[in-house]
Amino acid sequence: MQVRGQERRAIRCAGCWQGVAGTPFAEHEEPLMSSQSVNPRTGEAFGPVIPDTDRAALDRIVDAAAAAAAPWAALSPGARAEALDAVADALDADAERLAEIADAETGLGLPRLTGEVARTTFQLRMFATALRSDELDGVVVDPAVFDDPPAGHADLRQVLVPLGPVAVYGASNFPFAFSVLGGDTASALAAGCPVVAKAHPSHPQTSQAVADLAVGALASVGAPAGTLALVHGFEAGVALIEHPAIEAGAFTGSTTAGRALFDLAAGRPRPIPFYGELGSVNPVVVLAGAADRPSLAADYLASLTLGAGQFCTNPSLLLVPAGSSLVERVEDLVASLPAGTLLNGNVAALLDRNRGLLEGLPGVRRFRSDAPVGDGFLAAPEVLVTDAANAIAHPELLRVECFGPVGVVVEYGSVGEVLEVLETLQGALVGTIHAEVADEGVDQVVAALVRRCGRLVWNGWPTGVAVTAGQHHAGPYPASTSSLHTSVGTAAARRFQRPVAFQGFPTELLPEPLRD
Amino acid sequence: MQVRGQERRAIRCAGCWQGVAGTPFAEHEEPLMSSQSVNPRTGEAFGPVIPDTDRAALDRIVDAAAAAAAPWAALSPGARAEALDAVADALDADAERLAEIADAETGLGLPRLTGEVARTTFQLRMFATALRSDELDGVVVDPAVFDDPPAGHADLRQVLVPLGPVAVYGASNFPFAFSVLGGDTASALAAGCPVVAKAHPSHPQTSQAVADLAVGALASVGAPAGTLALVHGFEAGVALIEHPAIEAGAFTGSTTAGRALFDLAAGRPRPIPFYGELGSVNPVVVLAGAADRPSLAADYLASLTLGAGQFCTNPSLLLVPAGSSLVERVEDLVASLPAGTLLNGNVAALLDRNRGLLEGLPGVRRFRSDAPVGDGFLAAPEVLVTDAANAIAHPELLRVECFGPVGVVVEYGSVGEVLEVLETLQGALVGTIHAEVADEGVDQVVAALVRRCGRLVWNGWPTGVAVTAGQHHAGPYPASTSSLHTSVGTAAARRFQRPVAFQGFPTELLPEPLRD
Repeated sequence: MQVRGQERRAIRCAGCWQGVAGTPFAEHEEPLMSSQSVNPRTGEAFGPVIPDTDRAALDRIVDAAAAAAAPWAALSPGARAEALDAVADALDADAERLAEIADAETGLGLPRLTGEVARTTFQLRMFATALRSDELDGVVVDPAVFDDPPAGHADLRQVLVPLGPVAVYGASNFPFAFSVLGGDTASALAAGCPVVAKAHPSHPQTSQAVADLAVGALASVGAPAGTLALVHGFEAGVALIEHPAIEAGAFTGSTTAGRALFDLAAGRPRPIPFYGELGSVNPVVVLAGAADRPSLAADYLASLTLGAGQFCTNPSLLLVPAGSSLVERVEDLVASLPAGTLLNGNVAALLDRNRGLLEGLPGVRRFRSDAPVGDGFLAAPEVLVTDAANAIAHPELLRVECFGPVGVVVEYGSVGEVLEVLETLQGALVGTIHAEVADEGVDQVVAALVRRCGRLVWNGWPTGVAVTAGQHHAGPYPASTSSLHTSVGTAAARRFQRPVAFQGFPTELLPEPLRD
Repeated sequence: MQVRGQERRAIRCAGCWQGVAGTPFAEHEEPLMSSQSVNPRTGEAFGPVIPDTDRAALDRIVDAAAAAAAPWAALSPGARAEALDAVADALDADAERLAEIADAETGLGLPRLTGEVARTTFQLRMFATALRSDELDGVVVDPAVFDDPPAGHADLRQVLVPLGPVAVYGASNFPFAFSVLGGDTASALAAGCPVVAKAHPSHPQTSQAVADLAVGALASVGAPAGTLALVHGFEAGVALIEHPAIEAGAFTGSTTAGRALFDLAAGRPRPIPFYGELGSVNPVVVLAGAADRPSLAADYLASLTLGAGQFCTNPSLLLVPAGSSLVERVEDLVASLPAGTLLNGNVAALLDRNRGLLEGLPGVRRFRSDAPVGDGFLAAPEVLVTDAANAIAHPELLRVECFGPVGVVVEYGSVGEVLEVLETLQGALVGTIHAEVADEGVDQVVAALVRRCGRLVWNGWPTGVAVTAGQHHAGPYPASTSSLHTSVGTAAARRFQRPVAFQGFPTELLPEPLRD
């Protein structure tokens, strides 16, 4: 009973955000008052019932973040770097315990989750290093020009300053790297902004454990109280983005949820930027010169089913030349793939719905793994195969994201068809091309992918997003709500900073990075 | 009769945008079908009746811009620079005629307007220079690291690509520098984006003359047809920002109009960035060490009444130590100042309303110039004097913008009062401080101004915004809808570009700036 209750609750709750119910969340009558972990391998609830953060507590938390904003911003970059390092050390020291908690809540497995903790602490330390190298200052020095206007002007110097408290919404599929202490939080803290994180209801215990460690580590190095805090619950998440003291929002998750929060952020009396990384159907184009590469089919399926296919960079759409052996090999291999464990009942329900929608379209062949899906939220890998004309006639095949180990394969007859399919796509995080440089149409395909995607991968796979300065993890809507700003890599801090120009100032009164 | 008709029409039309009527524009029954110039010195209409752009024409224009997007983006930076130079040359060659048309429509005077044409062409050439120096490429090269993740990664290289067609809304107060060929258009064209400009109804002939010259100049150097176009009319302006082929909007004007367009841009099925520079009450803090400087009163009034006070950077709020002679000197000097000509009937009506609102508050002393205001849209310079406690008790004094030659002067008793006044302010484009480095509280005032403003001026005046790399012309809302992005200076182009990262690409297939 409890299981069923949990499940229904999870679906109803996350459904508001993720469109399962298809009704706007405002129509829900009774707010949820607590959350509890569910083991996705069994569907059974376990662990403490974590009460939602009520309005009074939320106000106290945001007020504390607002009070921390000036002292946290005033810390030297070196001191902020020390704090980020302390948080990273605390996570690393407890990595095994954290991974076990997260595994019980997400079913992602210990190897992946300990790896994800390492990614998360690497990311925190990358921002610490960036702070120490003044990479985040955005300093521009433009000396006076002694001439009449428009050429002449006073000395102008720019530096980036933090926006203020940031609301960060954790993702279901990365309980560490895109959650309480993920890239959004790390970059906001590095930028000088306090963070109020909203726990994802799918891993409340992991979120709380990470937050507790981080709050302790921040206190141990003397960071202001209120620099980081955690809230739970749907209502708290809504009140958070609407709170007048919040200056920006960051989110990774579904298009429905992200759009709802984006609308709230934009609709405030004083609108604030909202950086949402939403849904993405990521195209992979295989041109003739690459179609017969021996490992391509297996590598594609490995990327498609990695983490049970629950990556925003999943290679959801594969375009292959009609008549190549690649489709056959994919069809053969998929049959023997093991089932994957989905994160929660909502992800499972959404995958069922969207897969069913695409399976029901004419001209679609279905190849599904024979693996049994018993208890819990298991999903069998599957590919849906169609041709380009049919995909263009039924653009759902090119636009509906199956978040899970389910891919669409489109057989094309010509480069023209490839381009037509790519034009039908919405914005995507990443586009991939497998080809030889001399392949017919390679330039046109690259140009078409540039128009639709934020990152292009050559002869590789889109999963695996490197945390580094050259990364760009964002794309035209709906891939993200701001294609100008990345959520991964050092430039992610720029989302939470604004320039201030100082005109004709004496050196003594300039911020330290601007002094002569 | 015609005058009155024109006036009423102007107020009704612009009122939707600028809040004179206080009703949302959707409530208006009959759309306006044409516009005609009005001489602000007399209030009389003159010149051709310019029909509004109808929906079919708008669609054709935006379609042409969309068709121009790929070829304009594909031009080399050098070729785009050549096109910007050609446009600048065409404007310079016709500067005198253009200034005369604009003077008749705006009353800003020939010296200012020929200067503004020079500023506009300087700006176009600045972007041409930036294109030739690859300053706008945003290149990041991040070589492969051969290690396990998270440290190891493939070669990643970033370049900025244009967003696509941009809608630019011209401002009333800068018929050249913030209109059809102003900073928004220059930066968007430099970024590789076609532009559809919406003419301000207050200077339709100037807008058309500038657009005609620019379209001719662009054609003469082989730019794609559709790279630049002009539309007229309120309905066309609304349809433009909602058009699915438009990828960004840029605007300079009132908070009401800018917010309405921002809401439309954010509310689209596929939201687009909207860069609005809206209203701003810009504080000027005079600390004790500067209060007795002999020229301060005259310099303040010169900045306050420059261009009849119709600058977004107008020093609208002056804070002075109570008991200093500065207020007395301001009161003396203001009496003999000449009246200024306002841009149009709407600006005049809005100034009347907002000035009246502030004059009606208790504890406010009023000092107005004796200059006669006869025909046309004339306004006598005026200062409203109050003390800090009264201003905090009636925050309208600190938040209502009097767009015109009207300033609020606040006498303060302590630095604490200054800080309290600054905390009551909304976001501003620019904050100014007149002080000695050793003045009590100077650090705190600078810090408070940083929290509220996008630019800080030391011992100078906020009017006069240099077009240069170090400029930042934006501030926290309502000063702008994105405090992260400037509308003046080379960085303005970044508003219309998004990064694309290339992972593991062969040199031959990389965009030119990313090749080895």
